[in-house]
Amino acid sequence: MEAVTSPQQESSGPITRGSQWLKSLPNKVCDKTMEIARKTKKLGQDDPRRIVHSLKVGLALTLVSLFYYFKPLYDGFGDSAMWAVLTVVVVLEFSVGATLGKGLNRMLATLVAAGLGFGAHCLATLSGRKGEPILIATFVFIIAVIMTFMRFFPKMKARYDYGLLIFILTFCLVSVSGYRNDQVLKMAHERFSTILVGSCASLIVCICIFPVWIGEDLHNSVAANIGMLGNFLEAFGDEYFKVSEESNENIKLYLQEYRSVLTSKSSEETMANFARWEPGHGPFGYRHPWKMYLKVGNITRDCAYKVEALNSYLNSKIQTPAEIRGKIQVPCKRVSLECSGALKEMASTFRKMVRTRSAVMHIESSKKAAEELKSLLKTNLWEEADLLEMIPAASVASLVLEIIECIDKISEAVNELGEAACFRKSNATILPEQPDSIQQETVQQDSNTAMPVPHCVIVVAE
Amino acid sequence: MEAVTSPQQESSGPITRGSQWLKSLPNKVCDKTMEIARKTKKLGQDDPRRIVHSLKVGLALTLVSLFYYFKPLYDGFGDSAMWAVLTVVVVLEFSVGATLGKGLNRMLATLVAAGLGFGAHCLATLSGRKGEPILIATFVFIIAVIMTFMRFFPKMKARYDYGLLIFILTFCLVSVSGYRNDQVLKMAHERFSTILVGSCASLIVCICIFPVWIGEDLHNSVAANIGMLGNFLEAFGDEYFKVSEESNENIKLYLQEYRSVLTSKSSEETMANFARWEPGHGPFGYRHPWKMYLKVGNITRDCAYKVEALNSYLNSKIQTPAEIRGKIQVPCKRVSLECSGALKEMASTFRKMVRTRSAVMHIESSKKAAEELKSLLKTNLWEEADLLEMIPAASVASLVLEIIECIDKISEAVNELGEAACFRKSNATILPEQPDSIQQETVQQDSNTAMPVPHCVIVVAE
Repeated sequence: MEAVTSPQQESSGPITRGSQWLKSLPNKVCDKTMEIARKTKKLGQDDPRRIVHSLKVGLALTLVSLFYYFKPLYDGFGDSAMWAVLTVVVVLEFSVGATLGKGLNRMLATLVAAGLGFGAHCLATLSGRKGEPILIATFVFIIAVIMTFMRFFPKMKARYDYGLLIFILTFCLVSVSGYRNDQVLKMAHERFSTILVGSCASLIVCICIFPVWIGEDLHNSVAANIGMLGNFLEAFGDEYFKVSEESNENIKLYLQEYRSVLTSKSSEETMANFARWEPGHGPFGYRHPWKMYLKVGNITRDCAYKVEALNSYLNSKIQTPAEIRGKIQVPCKRVSLECSGALKEMASTFRKMVRTRSAVMHIESSKKAAEELKSLLKTNLWEEADLLEMIPAASVASLVLEIIECIDKISEAVNELGEAACFRKSNATILPEQPDSIQQETVQQDSNTAMPVPHCVIVVAE
Repeated sequence: MEAVTSPQQESSGPITRGSQWLKSLPNKVCDKTMEIARKTKKLGQDDPRRIVHSLKVGLALTLVSLFYYFKPLYDGFGDSAMWAVLTVVVVLEFSVGATLGKGLNRMLATLVAAGLGFGAHCLATLSGRKGEPILIATFVFIIAVIMTFMRFFPKMKARYDYGLLIFILTFCLVSVSGYRNDQVLKMAHERFSTILVGSCASLIVCICIFPVWIGEDLHNSVAANIGMLGNFLEAFGDEYFKVSEESNENIKLYLQEYRSVLTSKSSEETMANFARWEPGHGPFGYRHPWKMYLKVGNITRDCAYKVEALNSYLNSKIQTPAEIRGKIQVPCKRVSLECSGALKEMASTFRKMVRTRSAVMHIESSKKAAEELKSLLKTNLWEEADLLEMIPAASVASLVLEIIECIDKISEAVNELGEAACFRKSNATILPEQPDSIQQETVQQDSNTAMPVPHCVIVVAE
């Protein structure tokens, strides 16, 4: 026997392993529970409105189920009161826009479809007991086919998808059940009124208790996206022309977070669709131009694609030697910092719904710096350098120049939106700029991107 | 009187205008109808499966409503048969994955929640007629709060969102109605069995009549995205170094269509989520690695960002003069064509679920061409040129070089996926390449991107 089995190895048979597994089970369960608790806590901390929403759903359901418990209320609706409970479960959404959209869709579709279903029932009864199911089945088939196809129209899908679904549902319910139930009109009426009660209860709870306005979320998200690009450009200058190898945590974060802008299109579209259902509230008036937010978002994303290209030069294999990079460092850094300033300024004033010329000033200075950079590039600065090694730095310079154009476009779109949405005008007073103001700014910028602080050199008069 | 009102002007009062509007009304209605008809036709032609789906919904609803018409079937379920109809309306979705996901969620959630609701009802009745509503209301509140919060967990939202909703709904339905209705168990049982019937009817119609597999859509969409980037790179070489001002329609299309790749992330994620519900079918086995499609999609998008940067040089204000561009034309065009070849080859073989080394050959030749380009860039090629004017061409060259790396990554991810999904291996026979094969390829490429044709130099053996 060459391989001697040690007593320890021998003892690890299936029974031992089973008992070991059983022993470790409480630990495993404990670990899993801890993990879930940790995740739950994080979800709640990231957005406490989630906890509030959950409580609101519980409250609304408990309120509506009172219809069942109290005899006087129950007598009004009977068993149909259950529809009110179901409506609350289905309609009460996180944001006011989504709840209103679903509630109105549900109410309107139920009203129209219940009427049409009753009509179909009346028409079908004329054809006698034998012909009735055939006629009803034909109606159901036709309505289902047409309405289902209508759900594919992009405009219908965006706004009335749920309504079309409920239309088919109610039409079937009323017309089909008419065959066995003579009190169709009573049923149609009950269904509509319970859905009305459920929808209204949802809306009241949604709007009156800590309402979540999705339009505000869209507004802040568009502003935050612009701010993130600004943060990147600020960090980029330091990182690309850095002296030491280490970079601080903030810079690392800034160089990463812009990536969420690249894929923000669909969430912005969803938010804009919901926002259009919301009534005027606070600074967001009736007919607030939500569509223009999508335009600003698209141009911001175009800028983000350029920023992504810029980012790839940070980790590129072929790098321009530091001494060559150093030659363009001053104007290049200046352009990127002024661009960053413009974007952050825009994000900040846009968020506060103020129109100022402060971002334009930054763009102007970035253009001046760009001219410097261009004239530097025109000189035979890099005569002895290897062309291949020079390309990355040259590309960076050219990208930075392009980004200025992009920012110009963002600024234009933001101004258009500001005019259309009647942002208040600010008589920004520009303090005389310090010679080394740009260096100071980078230090003074607040690290919180979601709520950019106002730029230090601007005093808002209004 | 200076301004004499002519009789014609005078006659255009409100009545005349009204009658003119009335006269033009039929035309307006006619125009609108024509427009809707045109849009409907286009929707149907773009994807005829939409028409089929609409007919399927009509059919399933008509079938399920038979439960109401035929006495023997009706006696089994009674009025609850209506739940089966509602289930069909809500569950029957466009794709098998979505229908299965919703159907299984609905059935499972109903089963569990009905049981739990019955338990809650039994527990509550113990506390007497007065305590019952208070206890039930407490249960409803707790369940609603917990389940609503669970819907915020990203993993739950992706797969079980609908199930959690139905859980709350059924729990409320069973526990609350137990207060007025003694036959709670019968009700819970009826609700579950009708939902079972409705879900099964939906599934049968969805799977048996022209099924739409969302997994296949995801597969084709990922392949098409890779192909689109290939098309762009093919067109880019011609467009950037073009001699004449005119460009043909195909090239214009190719230079545009890649933009849809930039924003494909969320639709790919939705498709992957649904695809995971689908059973094995055809070449897509059980536990097909749908998640890896997302990885390929992400890397393809990273490549698309670089392509976007490349595209911006086509319309850039500062352009390198044509004679300077001409100096790098041959190797640069060769790199972009080989990259294009690699991508199109990958798209084609990936789509057919074949593993070949043919794309790798293209990547190898693109790398060779890249070395040529690099050594050309190292020579003092552009000594007399203005550095500023030179930058765009240099950037294009550097981007093209970077795209090779990206394609290498795509190829790696595609191969990984091919291995995990057991794509069949192909003994591709490589015909000896013609010296001017690249020029020929551009002519021979098929213009249909959705279904890229196999590359002409590859003979698939299996």
